[in-house]
Amino acid sequence: MTANRGIAATSASVIGLDRLSLNQATVKHLSLRHTATLCVRHDIPAIGLWRDRVAETGLAAAAAAVRAAGLHVSSLCRGGFVTQADPGGRRAALADNRAAIAEAAELGADALVLVCGGLVPGQRDLGVARRMVADAIGELVPEAQRLGVRLGIEPLHPMFCADRSVISTLGEATDLALRFPADAVGVVVDTYHVWWDARLSDEIARAGSPGRRLVGYQVCDWLLPLPQDTLFGRGHLGDGVIDFGPISASVAAVGYDGYVEVEIFNQEIWDAPADQTAAKVRERFAAVLGGG
Amino acid sequence: MTANRGIAATSASVIGLDRLSLNQATVKHLSLRHTATLCVRHDIPAIGLWRDRVAETGLAAAAAAVRAAGLHVSSLCRGGFVTQADPGGRRAALADNRAAIAEAAELGADALVLVCGGLVPGQRDLGVARRMVADAIGELVPEAQRLGVRLGIEPLHPMFCADRSVISTLGEATDLALRFPADAVGVVVDTYHVWWDARLSDEIARAGSPGRRLVGYQVCDWLLPLPQDTLFGRGHLGDGVIDFGPISASVAAVGYDGYVEVEIFNQEIWDAPADQTAAKVRERFAAVLGGG
Repeated sequence: MTANRGIAATSASVIGLDRLSLNQATVKHLSLRHTATLCVRHDIPAIGLWRDRVAETGLAAAAAAVRAAGLHVSSLCRGGFVTQADPGGRRAALADNRAAIAEAAELGADALVLVCGGLVPGQRDLGVARRMVADAIGELVPEAQRLGVRLGIEPLHPMFCADRSVISTLGEATDLALRFPADAVGVVVDTYHVWWDARLSDEIARAGSPGRRLVGYQVCDWLLPLPQDTLFGRGHLGDGVIDFGPISASVAAVGYDGYVEVEIFNQEIWDAPADQTAAKVRERFAAVLGGG
Repeated sequence: MTANRGIAATSASVIGLDRLSLNQATVKHLSLRHTATLCVRHDIPAIGLWRDRVAETGLAAAAAAVRAAGLHVSSLCRGGFVTQADPGGRRAALADNRAAIAEAAELGADALVLVCGGLVPGQRDLGVARRMVADAIGELVPEAQRLGVRLGIEPLHPMFCADRSVISTLGEATDLALRFPADAVGVVVDTYHVWWDARLSDEIARAGSPGRRLVGYQVCDWLLPLPQDTLFGRGHLGDGVIDFGPISASVAAVGYDGYVEVEIFNQEIWDAPADQTAAKVRERFAAVLGGG
């Protein structure tokens, strides 16, 4: 299957390379410093960071490195995982999320991405888990506001509902975000998780206006067949089945003007030379999203 | 994780063993005749049939065998797979569905289950595929009405959107069914595909009344971790993460009084002796759905 370029070529959905961000998970074997220099070498203006790589570098040093490279930080991945029954686990999860908020502030990230957590261990009650997510976000909002960080609730594909996120659709994420102030809580659209949803266009419109809840847009393709671990069924734009044109047009239509992160979890891509990956990320971004 | 029996024990959601149906895919290595005698041996009053096994036995002989065994036919699996771009493929798919409708009529099945089909081969446009599904169902309705067969649109889990069904949620299936007469088109709820949906209870209520679109209820559990082929991540009731109580209560609340099919695709269960599987199906049905 070749890239479906016709659809992306309408002017409304064109996203230029000046809005490309490389999520560092796409080249996950590189350190933060090496990923930053990779972005510079490939004229990629923004970066999505992961907390483990930030910690390895040291927070202040990581912030200094991305600033020195002239990179914008489009997101920090990730907070969340708050569905804990025991009080100790819950306290630890909240403390970890507060630390993540502080890191996002220091790094100047546009959003702290939240992967909310699956079912409570040993339980089957989705309602309980979803209430825990809402309660936890409520507890984190004052800290997010104090430090000027926006939390971005990322709905995960329903195949991860049991073990990673009980928030499975953009509609559900938006309903949740709307319970909190717009300066503190928004939603993140990742095409891998939401491309299948017949309500997606309507839900992007709802998330995007008038409250401006859309705080991040991440892209990668859905490959067939899925690999054994379905986390890693992601591919370069154009290598799979996702129709990026209509999704990007919906995102553009609500006035989203932030960066667009390419975030791909895929063993073959991780095994490829990072410069080759970065070049391909740029090329496919231009071809599939930029109407090139 | 043990069976969450407390939730199923409310009287509203109790489903007795007199409503148990064994879908023959659960013991897929058995012939239709052997599955029918297995049901009789285990006092299971109904059976869900698959077309390949019906064909192998011969349609008239299959109908005679289930009648002789005193079994009700709760469903015939399956029609659908109508998302074909080329006219020849489309004609063949419709002809095959008409044959399936005739078989369902001869067998006295409560519904012909439709797995609608994924993206059109070589295309990425979900809208086109979804319109093809609607058009095909529209073409099949007169034949279904003529033979008194109800088509049951089964939403498949979104992880199968690309390759098996572009109809991914119960809400979407119900919207589609409502475009056609109630005597011809309804929806089938399979817990494996829809358990994660925050809107499930509302959508069951909408499907169930007042138009009585709920024509089938299939149950199996969602196992963790998922196996390599995600088709086969199903387990005996109680072995996974699905909270059957609230789903069954929603199904009961709309007055669904049909059979409840246990349909499990799982290599370990297929490798087990069929009598052991049938006994376990009964036992878990009673414990998880019957409040036993």
